[in-house]
Amino acid sequence: MRILVVGANGTIGSAVVNEMKGDTEIIKASRSNSEIKVDITSTDSIMRMFEEVGEIDALVSTTGSAHFGPIEGLTPELNRIAVNSKLLGQINLVLLGLPYIRDKGSITLTTGILMDDPVVGGASSAMANGGIRAFVKSAAIELPRGIRINSVSPNMLEESKEKYGSFFVGFEPVPAKRVALAYRKSILGSQTGQSYTIY
Amino acid sequence: MRILVVGANGTIGSAVVNEMKGDTEIIKASRSNSEIKVDITSTDSIMRMFEEVGEIDALVSTTGSAHFGPIEGLTPELNRIAVNSKLLGQINLVLLGLPYIRDKGSITLTTGILMDDPVVGGASSAMANGGIRAFVKSAAIELPRGIRINSVSPNMLEESKEKYGSFFVGFEPVPAKRVALAYRKSILGSQTGQSYTIY
Repeated sequence: MRILVVGANGTIGSAVVNEMKGDTEIIKASRSNSEIKVDITSTDSIMRMFEEVGEIDALVSTTGSAHFGPIEGLTPELNRIAVNSKLLGQINLVLLGLPYIRDKGSITLTTGILMDDPVVGGASSAMANGGIRAFVKSAAIELPRGIRINSVSPNMLEESKEKYGSFFVGFEPVPAKRVALAYRKSILGSQTGQSYTIY
Repeated sequence: MRILVVGANGTIGSAVVNEMKGDTEIIKASRSNSEIKVDITSTDSIMRMFEEVGEIDALVSTTGSAHFGPIEGLTPELNRIAVNSKLLGQINLVLLGLPYIRDKGSITLTTGILMDDPVVGGASSAMANGGIRAFVKSAAIELPRGIRINSVSPNMLEESKEKYGSFFVGFEPVPAKRVALAYRKSILGSQTGQSYTIY
């Protein structure tokens, strides 16, 4: 089984790689410092990645950025960061990667708790998360060749508590290892169209 | 009370205008055939509209298009239609219109049932709907000056059954008049951050 993890160097990506290693061949992709380089905001870069990687059984995306800041300072331009990266970056991985995914393969994207449990400054991120969740639910009913698609919505990670804890007041952090289990469920399970919430 | 309805010529927009007419001053905006012209895919056009309209108490958006078609034919470019129109068009109305909305005013955006109850061909539309719903929920907790924000998610309209009924198999159509009540609730009520589903 060949698994492509886009965003393999991040906290979640590393945990997924760790969770899935063993019998599987894992291909790590990220903007830098990975065997495969990809900029998900560029469709050309995504297409080059898939040409280089070839056929896979599972596409996992644990990447995507968004501007974090007060709504009154959120300009259309700043909001485009989340649109081009977390939202369209991940969706374009699906649209352009579909021909490379083998029959009965799977796709797993990443959202986040801010769409369900908002904090000040998180509107742009929430938008991207909500867009991904709805896209996944809809795409699932018509993906060809038995290919499945799910998304994982993690709470703030224990590993990121020091960095982001002041924004996520009163949130109960979850270990990345626990979040990684949801990716395993999506990759090796049989469900499709789900949003796995690790809250 | 001054209400700006963007998309005032559409089936839902007309029903909202009809529902709210009487004591209120309604300013109708749309791409063509309205007193105020606006192209919501252009931030310049949105800014010109607000400069022309001036202060308002309620911003209502009943507009936004999306490509409808099989996921295997959905290119990143075709998906951009929904991103630039239904998703960012509506969100940019909020971001750029905020300074023109009076204290304790309201914003009401439009999503749709496809994010909850998907049909083949609706993934791009579902994405935009889910993005709007999550943005609204998050923005609501930090809008300034008591300004509220909600979204309305209509089922297929009775008025559109002949045109779209073949895509919405087994859906129970709702009259636009009933959908318009949710906009009245958002404009004149006190709730914020809600997604009113008219299913």
